[in-house]
Amino acid sequence: MTGVEITFLPDNRTVRVPPGTTLLEAARLAGADLEAPCNGAGSCGKCRVQLLEDADQPHADELLHLSGSEIAEGVRLACRSRADGSATVQLPGAAASGHRILSEGLLPAFAIDPRIGKRYLELPPPSLADNCDDLSRLARALDGGLLAELPLAFLQELPGALRAGGYRVTVVTADRHPIGVEPGDTSARCYGVAVDIGTTTVVAALIDLNSGDELASASMINPQKGYGLDVLSRIQQLRAHPEALHTLSSLIREGIDQLIGELSASASVGRGEIYELAVAANATMTHLFLGVDPAGIGASPYLPAFTAGASVPAREVGLAIAPFGLVYCLPAVSGYIGADIVAGLLAAEMDQSAGIALLIDIGTNGEIVLGSAQGLHACSCAAGPALEGMNIGCGMRAAEGAIERVLIDGELTLGTIGDAPAVGICGSGIIDAVAELVKVGAIGRSGRLLRLNGKEAPLPWHARLRSDGSSRFVLSETGGVEIAVSQKDVRQVQLAKGAILSGMLSLTAQLGIGLEEIERVYIAGAFGHHVRKESLARLGVFPRECLDKVVLIGNSSKSGAIMTLLSREKRARAEAIARKVGYLELSCFPGYDRLFADCLSFAEGAW
Amino acid sequence: MTGVEITFLPDNRTVRVPPGTTLLEAARLAGADLEAPCNGAGSCGKCRVQLLEDADQPHADELLHLSGSEIAEGVRLACRSRADGSATVQLPGAAASGHRILSEGLLPAFAIDPRIGKRYLELPPPSLADNCDDLSRLARALDGGLLAELPLAFLQELPGALRAGGYRVTVVTADRHPIGVEPGDTSARCYGVAVDIGTTTVVAALIDLNSGDELASASMINPQKGYGLDVLSRIQQLRAHPEALHTLSSLIREGIDQLIGELSASASVGRGEIYELAVAANATMTHLFLGVDPAGIGASPYLPAFTAGASVPAREVGLAIAPFGLVYCLPAVSGYIGADIVAGLLAAEMDQSAGIALLIDIGTNGEIVLGSAQGLHACSCAAGPALEGMNIGCGMRAAEGAIERVLIDGELTLGTIGDAPAVGICGSGIIDAVAELVKVGAIGRSGRLLRLNGKEAPLPWHARLRSDGSSRFVLSETGGVEIAVSQKDVRQVQLAKGAILSGMLSLTAQLGIGLEEIERVYIAGAFGHHVRKESLARLGVFPRECLDKVVLIGNSSKSGAIMTLLSREKRARAEAIARKVGYLELSCFPGYDRLFADCLSFAEGAW
Repeated sequence: MTGVEITFLPDNRTVRVPPGTTLLEAARLAGADLEAPCNGAGSCGKCRVQLLEDADQPHADELLHLSGSEIAEGVRLACRSRADGSATVQLPGAAASGHRILSEGLLPAFAIDPRIGKRYLELPPPSLADNCDDLSRLARALDGGLLAELPLAFLQELPGALRAGGYRVTVVTADRHPIGVEPGDTSARCYGVAVDIGTTTVVAALIDLNSGDELASASMINPQKGYGLDVLSRIQQLRAHPEALHTLSSLIREGIDQLIGELSASASVGRGEIYELAVAANATMTHLFLGVDPAGIGASPYLPAFTAGASVPAREVGLAIAPFGLVYCLPAVSGYIGADIVAGLLAAEMDQSAGIALLIDIGTNGEIVLGSAQGLHACSCAAGPALEGMNIGCGMRAAEGAIERVLIDGELTLGTIGDAPAVGICGSGIIDAVAELVKVGAIGRSGRLLRLNGKEAPLPWHARLRSDGSSRFVLSETGGVEIAVSQKDVRQVQLAKGAILSGMLSLTAQLGIGLEEIERVYIAGAFGHHVRKESLARLGVFPRECLDKVVLIGNSSKSGAIMTLLSREKRARAEAIARKVGYLELSCFPGYDRLFADCLSFAEGAW
Repeated sequence: MTGVEITFLPDNRTVRVPPGTTLLEAARLAGADLEAPCNGAGSCGKCRVQLLEDADQPHADELLHLSGSEIAEGVRLACRSRADGSATVQLPGAAASGHRILSEGLLPAFAIDPRIGKRYLELPPPSLADNCDDLSRLARALDGGLLAELPLAFLQELPGALRAGGYRVTVVTADRHPIGVEPGDTSARCYGVAVDIGTTTVVAALIDLNSGDELASASMINPQKGYGLDVLSRIQQLRAHPEALHTLSSLIREGIDQLIGELSASASVGRGEIYELAVAANATMTHLFLGVDPAGIGASPYLPAFTAGASVPAREVGLAIAPFGLVYCLPAVSGYIGADIVAGLLAAEMDQSAGIALLIDIGTNGEIVLGSAQGLHACSCAAGPALEGMNIGCGMRAAEGAIERVLIDGELTLGTIGDAPAVGICGSGIIDAVAELVKVGAIGRSGRLLRLNGKEAPLPWHARLRSDGSSRFVLSETGGVEIAVSQKDVRQVQLAKGAILSGMLSLTAQLGIGLEEIERVYIAGAFGHHVRKESLARLGVFPRECLDKVVLIGNSSKSGAIMTLLSREKRARAEAIARKVGYLELSCFPGYDRLFADCLSFAEGAW
């Protein structure tokens, strides 16, 4: 049989195609799920796949859409890559409601030893001569190993399970202790769900606890968004209206329950076959999910009610999984270094790293952790949402029509998501735009937009610099709709990058570590996936010497949650990490204000 | 100051009255709660009190209403007893909705060491320099002593309690582990509720866990009564309609929640100040309360789902006490020797008795336990409800108008509850009636009602023997309403006494114990409180040699529940008792059928 064999992961769909077929066509033949809004024109950049063997040199179209690190990692556009030999191709996770939500994350190798287990038992049927009660009969088969305080659901399920299974039952255990019982031998079917509750997005993955495989993934915009886009505004809502705690809590619980329903349906796994959720989230989201008032986090001294990991019955948080199912919330370090960061450290294995590493999660609140197996220290900085495209005049989320690429090379070239007409600027777009404006001198080192005085040699982009009304640089004005980067936008970007950079430099200074000693920079989250390294360097979000050490670990919050679901050792490690990380309060760090001011500069030598 | 001082328990109300005042008048002066429907006429017999010091010889009116054992125990009618010297008088518990429900029970002395405790803490307020989370702050004050898996309600209450109490809080503990937290110093207020769920009635008592005092008592008819009057008929309902489990479960939960509300209101104790319920019930009632299907108990080999003691969150059984409150269900021995019997053994301290004792609980299902500290053995017998006045042609519960006393001494004398016109016969009435009919020869040893042949010397009561339609003895026909004891009624009583007597004799035979070796006969429940010993002897419910050893321990199910609420040692002992009692299945006992037939006889020598 001629042709080459292409296997698409994670669904493991294989198809044989003639050599030279594009991976996009192969994916369609295989019935694999791959979005391609521009239908193979090479312009939208959405049909990203990762080649797990050698990848060819990238096509010119790919260079516009892919960052250097992505290219190095074998990421290509399926419409521009051709099957020359047999290949294994990793497809991206599903997106939700038109938004790009990052669901994939780096997952290190580890031994599977989940907290939840199963044990199949064949009990002798009762008689008048052997008439002990159901629970005692089960305890006898378990060598007396029953909890003193069994979950009520266990007792409620027991008699039905024994009768229905003809005294052959499967006992579900947590840390080897029985928590539930099912008729017959169900040991082959044992599932958990890992959840990343972000302030903006929620991602859930269905995990086979026997194999460790991720069977399905689902995501949604955090249903609390109507109560404020960031953590602080939601806390302020709560301070003004304490009764909103119930609403915020219900919203996220119902949202997660909906995701569980989607996962269950898409993988043909019953809700009752799901026994545990592992939830990683920032401290405020964890509080709201559990129905605990997070108001203390919102004002000095910024105290959460708890940081320890918590395990509660799923019923108590309104989730319909197995009736005796559990929910584990990963531990946090402090109010602003949440379980999502602990999960990231777990996924990056920074607590076991011989060399010094840095982990950064960039969002409205930026979190930075520096250290190694010798010790870990963290700080958080109020970066604002500018680097995510928020609080920007023409800012928008990464959705269709968002400008995500800007090149100024004589003339201006724009790339939009979905190759659609530009309707706004997303995070990677604003970073690219400001970096390119710095590159061509349209933004000075102090962050001031150039005002032409007519003496310059005229350049093609000069016409885009406007100062009627406000100073701005116009990216697009198709159909009379102006999409521009304003002086105010530049200041927002500048404050964000200043906050992150100064946080990082405070940590290194505090610990007496030189930037050159940092061996790895892990970037958690979506940030960096769609941004060119060169732009990051020019902007000064990171010192240039760190750029080559960057590893994008993606949704490491979800990865860490998966690890705690699958490994008791990793769960214990998460708890240890949370206790181990030292917290540096930047406002107490000597000389911080001066350092922050220095870090606002776009001149790379300034800091 | 002249006069004598009378103190009424349990409320400890003291009043000084002139010598010769009746205790009923004194009780009214003291504001003590004592029912007297006949207003002191000496006819209703309801104003019973117990004199804790020496009591005078009983008045003639008292002999009609009180049993010999009651008189021996100092029980008198308050309207017929006069205060000659200072005295301490125990008042009875409250009755509910017109029915007499026994709420008092024997309670031995023991040290108070409840599972639930409180600990007041003053924490250092937080600052930026001391900014650990709320839970860690509390753990520090508790020397790190926090549960790994705290109840969710603990976390939910924590931040509010710390803020409201200015970092002075009281931690509520269970077995020394924190389960809840409250603002300020609440250590003086700590309450529990002991519950006896009977198939017919439910009794709840509010207990001060610091002092051990019973603050209030409340009772109701079991709200499941619409689903059958006895355990078996409720189980049959469930076998036919499995969905009724939810209804039966909700009914008893809502009933208990209502009693908690009454206790809370009457003693001015908040529901949130109640931290634990201890529940003693037969196995079926315990199953239904916890929402566990009891169907296995209803058919051979009569298996309950569990017999072990169970502790579950109060929330999970729908009870509104403290949000982190617990419910403890006492353990059972088997499907027909329930936690109510274990509670009775605990209250009677039979597991510690040097001499051999017998405990009997007479109801539709009769339970009998025989033994000592050396070992305990139990059996259960289907007595039927005749001795409670049920399944009797004119039978009724012990409510106003029920015939409760019958004397045939030439003519017939009747006593009714509330001195009201007779409307039916209650349990003590049918026992008295049959015993008196045996005494005068109207019932033969085989149980057959006398048929007059006209040759007898005519006696005044002969006119009451009728055989038109059915054979019967007419007790009352005032206003054309006939209240009679029929041949069928006699057979029901005969079956009941035969079942109890044969069960008792099977146990003694099995263990090789002679009746004379039995040092105490504890009668649990209402049975015996309103019955004359002589009637019991004549009926042959017990062998005559046991009668003088009878101790009425009243609602020992409630007493045992109170003991487990107040003492961790007693709780452990209840668990040990449940494991220790051997169960004798009468249907497997050799020669049981013959013994049962012998025990049906009304001739005392026959068994």
